[in-house]
Amino acid sequence: MPLPDAAEHRRRTAALQREMQTRDLSAILLTAEPDIRHVTGFLSRFWESPTRPWFVVVPAAGDPVAVIPSIGAALMAKTWITDIRDWPAPAPADDGLSLLAEALREAVPAGGRIGAPMGPETVLRMPQADFARLREMLAPRVFVDATPAVRAVREVKSPVEIASIEAACAAAGAAFAAVPGFAAPGAALRDVFRDFQIGCLKGGADWVPYLAGGAGPGGYDDVISPATAAPLAAGDVLMIDTGAVVDGYFCDFDRNFAVGRADDAARRAYHALYAATDAGLAAARAGITAAELHAAMADAIGRAGGAPIGGRFGHGLGMQLTEWPSVQPGDETVLREGMVLTLEPGVHAAPGRIMVAEEDIVLTAHGARLLTRRAPPDLPVLTGGGLA
Amino acid sequence: MPLPDAAEHRRRTAALQREMQTRDLSAILLTAEPDIRHVTGFLSRFWESPTRPWFVVVPAAGDPVAVIPSIGAALMAKTWITDIRDWPAPAPADDGLSLLAEALREAVPAGGRIGAPMGPETVLRMPQADFARLREMLAPRVFVDATPAVRAVREVKSPVEIASIEAACAAAGAAFAAVPGFAAPGAALRDVFRDFQIGCLKGGADWVPYLAGGAGPGGYDDVISPATAAPLAAGDVLMIDTGAVVDGYFCDFDRNFAVGRADDAARRAYHALYAATDAGLAAARAGITAAELHAAMADAIGRAGGAPIGGRFGHGLGMQLTEWPSVQPGDETVLREGMVLTLEPGVHAAPGRIMVAEEDIVLTAHGARLLTRRAPPDLPVLTGGGLA
Repeated sequence: MPLPDAAEHRRRTAALQREMQTRDLSAILLTAEPDIRHVTGFLSRFWESPTRPWFVVVPAAGDPVAVIPSIGAALMAKTWITDIRDWPAPAPADDGLSLLAEALREAVPAGGRIGAPMGPETVLRMPQADFARLREMLAPRVFVDATPAVRAVREVKSPVEIASIEAACAAAGAAFAAVPGFAAPGAALRDVFRDFQIGCLKGGADWVPYLAGGAGPGGYDDVISPATAAPLAAGDVLMIDTGAVVDGYFCDFDRNFAVGRADDAARRAYHALYAATDAGLAAARAGITAAELHAAMADAIGRAGGAPIGGRFGHGLGMQLTEWPSVQPGDETVLREGMVLTLEPGVHAAPGRIMVAEEDIVLTAHGARLLTRRAPPDLPVLTGGGLA
Repeated sequence: MPLPDAAEHRRRTAALQREMQTRDLSAILLTAEPDIRHVTGFLSRFWESPTRPWFVVVPAAGDPVAVIPSIGAALMAKTWITDIRDWPAPAPADDGLSLLAEALREAVPAGGRIGAPMGPETVLRMPQADFARLREMLAPRVFVDATPAVRAVREVKSPVEIASIEAACAAAGAAFAAVPGFAAPGAALRDVFRDFQIGCLKGGADWVPYLAGGAGPGGYDDVISPATAAPLAAGDVLMIDTGAVVDGYFCDFDRNFAVGRADDAARRAYHALYAATDAGLAAARAGITAAELHAAMADAIGRAGGAPIGGRFGHGLGMQLTEWPSVQPGDETVLREGMVLTLEPGVHAAPGRIMVAEEDIVLTAHGARLLTRRAPPDLPVLTGGGLA
């Protein structure tokens, strides 16, 4: 991966600091991987280890301070961050708390407000008992929710972020193109999933954090299951949904395939999804709300004679597989240029069976631009020798 | 993957309930993936999406209650859990809180104690603002740290868990065996990492959540970096460290290779690590402490004329890449039969350069049993045509 670009990360930090000023925050404490990477450029798969907390303090003015385990100091020193304070974690008696409290005291006057993401779709990635202790150490300073500030900046992607997401889409696209070569009646879903991940890697993915899907007669009942050893059967609809990563950015899209043969109900459901995606692509633009984008797709399913499923029809995408906003009724987020979203309509395909389609887009000055190579207009049929 | 075994998960739940009784807990609230899977058997890669919180309430007596997003209800219904209460998440205004509060009120009398993991190596996986609101909703009930209860049960692995970890070790072992076929002077580290992950999948891994490593002349300066496009050069020492997963269980071990040629300092460092691992294998048994296991390895490095690095020399392993305890000075955890641990000694190999070795073991009644096929006694040299 390229070395983190200092100018890019300075711009992001400055944007976050502008949000902080309008919200009277003296500093923001970041603990989660995407928030820390967004500001610093620090990219490591070591976050898979839950043992150690990591902290970045973004002051209202000036450069961020990284308060991190020693094991990460060499890698953090390769980013634009110069104030790196490390400790030999894990140290359960004081796992960075003293260092962190000192950094926050420098940035925040007594009585000042410290922001931390504490709202929807966020997690404070440190032991809860340590956070309670930190609050006591820093009183009378108070912690307040900084989700709106972080979200406002992270939701709009820069050109380099969009390019990475598009590269991830291409990697998964190569794997989807290879599916007819390894998925056919009789193939175990577990083997299909394994071959699909190999296809993503061969297609250029750095890694494949997410893969789920389902297969069943005329549709599936679940879109988040891991693979079993069950073989694909003629008449099944197979759905594969993946989040492959390039340079730390995700794609998130799926593809549907009929196994051996496609019945009329599955074809109709597929066409309703295709029409819904058409409607989503036409509607998506800066200025409308996420709820309006959902309505455009749900209405199209109805016009195609389908029955939309509940739940959301897409979401933000970037350093995480799923990000704000939610394309669903009630989400009044106003879409902005530079947002990367998934369009993910779902329909009832048969009793107890659903089908879901998904594409990734970026909002430009001229509306939606597809980052995925779009699914074919008709449900493809896997025959074992390729596509029918 | 096999369907979750009801008897296995009932045993785990009963063990947790025994810990709760000695700690006067009326219920435990679980929010993190491994904790929830440990009790229910619920396995999904969908946890990669941070959008939705998931909750399981384990009462002091009786069966657990799952309070989860509707998207997971079908999959949870395939486990032994029968009391499943779902809501159409994401619902930012009330993202499961009312349902969760009701389940906790049923299990916990007013004034009772609710445990939640809040200590070292834990994260409360729900928005912090929601947790604050939940505490208010449930007052005068109080939340207390349940890390010791959860840890006591999760640290000791069952035979089926050990078998899964061993299968993950075999999958990564197959990939390590293939390294001489694709890693040689001139190969880009990024391509080596990609081929290595393909090797894990071909070797039987379900997925490859973790891969890190480093390469540099005579050693590396960092063990958590992602791969760059930099080519391997003759004289480099390449280290690859992976966490591959089978049936939801990790391996975590590394291998070192000399690229083109090995210098004497690298060979000496490798031998010191090998001697340290020998000492760790001989010392590891139920009844000693994690700190004593560290000392056995550090002393062996000293006897071999090496200089041990700081930090820990191993850790627990299971549903997470890293778990309690830490094999380091000060960790007085008494080791128990059934614990799965990594032995991970590190030495200074050259100025600014380190080398680290890692193997996975389980503690039996007769001491340590290797779950990995042990690294070779001499530093292997990659020549492009295989091993020298």
